[in-house]
Amino acid sequence: MLTPRYGRLDLKAGRVEMTHGAGGRAMAQLIGEIFRPALANEFLSQGNDQAIVPLPAGGRLAMTTDGYVVSPLFFPGGDIGSLAIHGTVNDLAMAGAVPLYLTANFVIEEGFALADLNRIATSMGAAARDAGVPVVAGDTKVVERGKADGLYISTAGVGVVPAGLDLSGDRARPGDAVILSGTIGDHGVAIMSSRENLTFETAVLSDSAALHGLVAGMVAAAGPALKLMRDPTRGGLAATLNEVARQSSVGVLIEEAAIPVRPQVAAACELLGLDPLNVANEGKLVAVVEARMADALIEVMRAHQLGRDAVRIGTVTRDDQHFVQMTTAFGGKRIVDWLAGEQLPRIC
Amino acid sequence: MLTPRYGRLDLKAGRVEMTHGAGGRAMAQLIGEIFRPALANEFLSQGNDQAIVPLPAGGRLAMTTDGYVVSPLFFPGGDIGSLAIHGTVNDLAMAGAVPLYLTANFVIEEGFALADLNRIATSMGAAARDAGVPVVAGDTKVVERGKADGLYISTAGVGVVPAGLDLSGDRARPGDAVILSGTIGDHGVAIMSSRENLTFETAVLSDSAALHGLVAGMVAAAGPALKLMRDPTRGGLAATLNEVARQSSVGVLIEEAAIPVRPQVAAACELLGLDPLNVANEGKLVAVVEARMADALIEVMRAHQLGRDAVRIGTVTRDDQHFVQMTTAFGGKRIVDWLAGEQLPRIC
Repeated sequence: MLTPRYGRLDLKAGRVEMTHGAGGRAMAQLIGEIFRPALANEFLSQGNDQAIVPLPAGGRLAMTTDGYVVSPLFFPGGDIGSLAIHGTVNDLAMAGAVPLYLTANFVIEEGFALADLNRIATSMGAAARDAGVPVVAGDTKVVERGKADGLYISTAGVGVVPAGLDLSGDRARPGDAVILSGTIGDHGVAIMSSRENLTFETAVLSDSAALHGLVAGMVAAAGPALKLMRDPTRGGLAATLNEVARQSSVGVLIEEAAIPVRPQVAAACELLGLDPLNVANEGKLVAVVEARMADALIEVMRAHQLGRDAVRIGTVTRDDQHFVQMTTAFGGKRIVDWLAGEQLPRIC
Repeated sequence: MLTPRYGRLDLKAGRVEMTHGAGGRAMAQLIGEIFRPALANEFLSQGNDQAIVPLPAGGRLAMTTDGYVVSPLFFPGGDIGSLAIHGTVNDLAMAGAVPLYLTANFVIEEGFALADLNRIATSMGAAARDAGVPVVAGDTKVVERGKADGLYISTAGVGVVPAGLDLSGDRARPGDAVILSGTIGDHGVAIMSSRENLTFETAVLSDSAALHGLVAGMVAAAGPALKLMRDPTRGGLAATLNEVARQSSVGVLIEEAAIPVRPQVAAACELLGLDPLNVANEGKLVAVVEARMADALIEVMRAHQLGRDAVRIGTVTRDDQHFVQMTTAFGGKRIVDWLAGEQLPRIC
């Protein structure tokens, strides 16, 4: 279907064409009628090839980037647009940074429905506004039919790290407490449930959410006792804890009984042969904190909506082999390895 | 072909597998053996989900992002890796910003040759080092065979705009001079020449290059007389001048005879039915400057290797319709429109 060249885009039945990526008038129209209104802010509307933004004086800059290839694009609890905002905000927040600005990048398959693109851009704009972090620059490319899977998004973000704050994956020490902000596996199971060939019944929504508000309270409460934070996305809690163990040259011992898993998530994982420890989360965090501050930190986390199920799940140990181990419900102990490879492809 | 799980990657015959994008050990190996060595710098090696980087005090931040879907991935004069560095550095430089840090994001098709990935990552690292702008954070996603076209890259960048400098697309005024830094059409023709179905003989190389060094000299020389700069990428010189005309609410009058085009580029364009004005460039810039400073600015530009063919090509005019017009070699005048849509798909 050809979009009329000089009329408005047909947001009901129109489709993305190769021309929408060619740098000419059609691209200007796509940006002007879909992305600019959806993501509107004073910086984006500068209309140059880059945005000029103010920065608080001093401080260090945190920078991050993430690609999003989630399939399907729309899932219970979110879509690729909101996910792309939350994921990048969270990567900044894990350093204790105050997220300030985002950029967004779209690779769109020829023939993609303009209605879906508009829905995703709108959801992205809403997520950015809710988080208070504007998308200040963007880019759009169109590739031929069969050279993508509808839409891929990549976002990058910058934030400012408050003076004196130093959170890093290498700061865990034996004796530190390991705290988890809530249930695990929700995002991965929500995605699986919405894939057409896995239509089991479930009420699970993705936990996709921006965690910087929760983090701000944690940083204020725990001060220098807070060693590091991580969001257990791809690879799940198991991968995150193994990364920390390796970076900090320590072991980690967690308790299976302490880890919150929704009954529906546990049931879905059993059906699919998955371990919730390996399933992706998009609105949870792991914090390592000096043990003396653990209870106070958990209390502060539970006062925030996104941390109300916060709980201590274990302890950092001395271990030359940097193993993550788990005390099982039956009193045994097993090694929690990160997977060699694939468990859930295109989960984010 | 399965990569041995715990041996080193097979950089000669190995291929990217879905597991390389799954957040586990295989992904850590891909990053550790290809991306980290190729892009090595102190910030990337922090190994967290974000990089913490220092910033000069004060100043405004410039931010930009670009997606790269160029086909083929390797072309005369560059590849998608070097292009992704140059393009994003240039978008920062066009604001007069000193480019400081980049992020990079890879969407890789299952089955992509590790040797090609390594070659591209290495080229990217070399381009970043040459430009003096490190890639401080990155992300990798893998999609199934047939869901991409080998590899897509997106980069984002930040830079600092020197105090007092205010370059913007809306600052062109009637009487200002329009300056071009060199020949047009080289990148587009280099890409076309390397596409398998268009194997005409040509010695044209892409002009892909980082322009921030040239720009620094221009900013120092022209001071506040410099109004704006743009790099004429997708859509070519015609799209860039039309954007400026629209943003500044002016007209632009250029002279065909003044615009440098290599003979091989002109010949290739004629063969292909292309107008060099619409063909993408990746190492050229257009500057609008007060007319009194034009000659001095051109002199400074010609002293830099990337500006040695710099020339004044026209003048900003008063025009309520914001037309770009061109005095042809035969003394006539024609309107230089931007294309409605596609001329050269996936040129960058």
